[in-house]
Amino acid sequence: MLYLSEQDARALVGHENAFGAVREVFASIARGEARNFPVVREDLGHAGAVYGIKSGFDRLGKILGLKSGGYWPGNEERGLTNHQSTITLFDADTGQPLAAVAANWLTAVRTAAASALSIDLLARQDTEVLGIVGAGFQSRFQLEAAVRRRKFREIVGWNFHADMLPNLERTAADLGLPFRAVTPQELCASADVIITITSAASAHLEAGWIRPGTHIACMGTDTRGKQELDPEILALGSVFTDEVEQSISIGEAQHAFAAGRLRRDAICQIGRVIVGERLGRASDDEVTVFDGTGVALQDLAVAKIALEAAAAQELGKSLTA
Amino acid sequence: MLYLSEQDARALVGHENAFGAVREVFASIARGEARNFPVVREDLGHAGAVYGIKSGFDRLGKILGLKSGGYWPGNEERGLTNHQSTITLFDADTGQPLAAVAANWLTAVRTAAASALSIDLLARQDTEVLGIVGAGFQSRFQLEAAVRRRKFREIVGWNFHADMLPNLERTAADLGLPFRAVTPQELCASADVIITITSAASAHLEAGWIRPGTHIACMGTDTRGKQELDPEILALGSVFTDEVEQSISIGEAQHAFAAGRLRRDAICQIGRVIVGERLGRASDDEVTVFDGTGVALQDLAVAKIALEAAAAQELGKSLTA
Repeated sequence: MLYLSEQDARALVGHENAFGAVREVFASIARGEARNFPVVREDLGHAGAVYGIKSGFDRLGKILGLKSGGYWPGNEERGLTNHQSTITLFDADTGQPLAAVAANWLTAVRTAAASALSIDLLARQDTEVLGIVGAGFQSRFQLEAAVRRRKFREIVGWNFHADMLPNLERTAADLGLPFRAVTPQELCASADVIITITSAASAHLEAGWIRPGTHIACMGTDTRGKQELDPEILALGSVFTDEVEQSISIGEAQHAFAAGRLRRDAICQIGRVIVGERLGRASDDEVTVFDGTGVALQDLAVAKIALEAAAAQELGKSLTA
Repeated sequence: MLYLSEQDARALVGHENAFGAVREVFASIARGEARNFPVVREDLGHAGAVYGIKSGFDRLGKILGLKSGGYWPGNEERGLTNHQSTITLFDADTGQPLAAVAANWLTAVRTAAASALSIDLLARQDTEVLGIVGAGFQSRFQLEAAVRRRKFREIVGWNFHADMLPNLERTAADLGLPFRAVTPQELCASADVIITITSAASAHLEAGWIRPGTHIACMGTDTRGKQELDPEILALGSVFTDEVEQSISIGEAQHAFAAGRLRRDAICQIGRVIVGERLGRASDDEVTVFDGTGVALQDLAVAKIALEAAAAQELGKSLTA
């Protein structure tokens, strides 16, 4: 059994190999070769924390394991990340643990890989402006991954707390792109691709603001009650997701679905686009929405490539007795 | 983060401290301070394996974590145990992983501690003969733990495959007790305490065979379809369990419950006896049954004492970067 620290994970997994791993596992899901198991998600009633476990198995990639952890709101005061998670991988042939992998970095990278995958498959080719709603820890990962899939000449951004906007400005500068702070309405008027990555409980973007041809990757909604978009955007656009059941229960689509404005079978698991079973964007005028709820197999797929790279580079700490 | 191997776990946790830890956590459950989270249990469709995750939180003992693993029927051919499991403990205040603990030994010890606890709380004081149904890997643990709670002058045993009976004979000899191989009916006729620890799918013991005053600890039934006792034994006796919901769905009580012969509210969570909220055995003639389905908090409680003992003895392998 190997242990990989946050530092190891950073050295071993980047945007490019994470993108490949997430693409492959989403295709496995579409082919019926991989599936996510039921999610455990519990309010601890202690330290304000929410604890959860996501697990799954990819028969094709022989990836079996779980990610456990959650959100501890008091951590920042202690100098720790509020989100804490660890991935455990098992040998699918024997059940023996293969590795424990610190997963804070991997979670950010795999989330960015999913939205980048949606941009790769669903955004128009002639994109010019990238919009981002949210300026927290994950915004940098999202922007870094997105600019690898399409050419952009500018980044526009908005955040509920304006004092965090310099985060976006810094990331844009590192990517060699100009940045403009805008209102949500201005953002919709100029962006060809919009990424939302907030922990909001009500819509930031209204349906009337969205231009034809926009692609929106909603990456912040992973719990009942969270929301980033006006449900009408999902009702009128084409909706794709990582996992349909999660999309309608805890994802961005929960609101449009509950309101009867979006049918379950109108939501397409994005792997079906990868394997060619479904069309992606149908026209340059279509609004496409990716509801990225976050699934175990994304986590396990990036942990697996970390483990493989660690073996090649002799990184990590072996626990073999 | 610390790693404790099977070898470490053996050195750190024995029948006596496991008994105390399991007793304490069952009391925490009864007090509403601890609870088990929903169980993940999935047929992998690979290597004939069943994979699962059990998790829980004890607010009082600040024990948070999970046990993951399962049953890989092809392992024995490879020189490995078919049951494979690993416990991960987290810091309840921050969500950071504290330890990964190899849990094959701990699982056997915590299972034996639960049945021993039921004997401690429910068996008559004047026991003479200890009966055991099942002669597999776990039978030794069961017998070792049982003889610490009551005095016995003899062990009687039965196993579906007679060629495994020498296992029981050896254990009895190590415990300084005579052993007699008997039929299931003879076993019921002579034993004051009966432990069943098989993977059977139909009843071994009939209701008409059970003598008044017998205590039965059913430790083998943890899946829909498994069964060790005639459901009438549970219908007529007083039934105790580690977790009522599991008892009626995957435990020994599933059959009596499904047949309408046992009501949910007639089953007593055993912690309620520990905290004095419920009476244990009501009379010397009563038949008591403990339905030990196995809960996460048992596993986590013994892993926690392993971790504490490891710190005191400087055992284990530190993963701190």
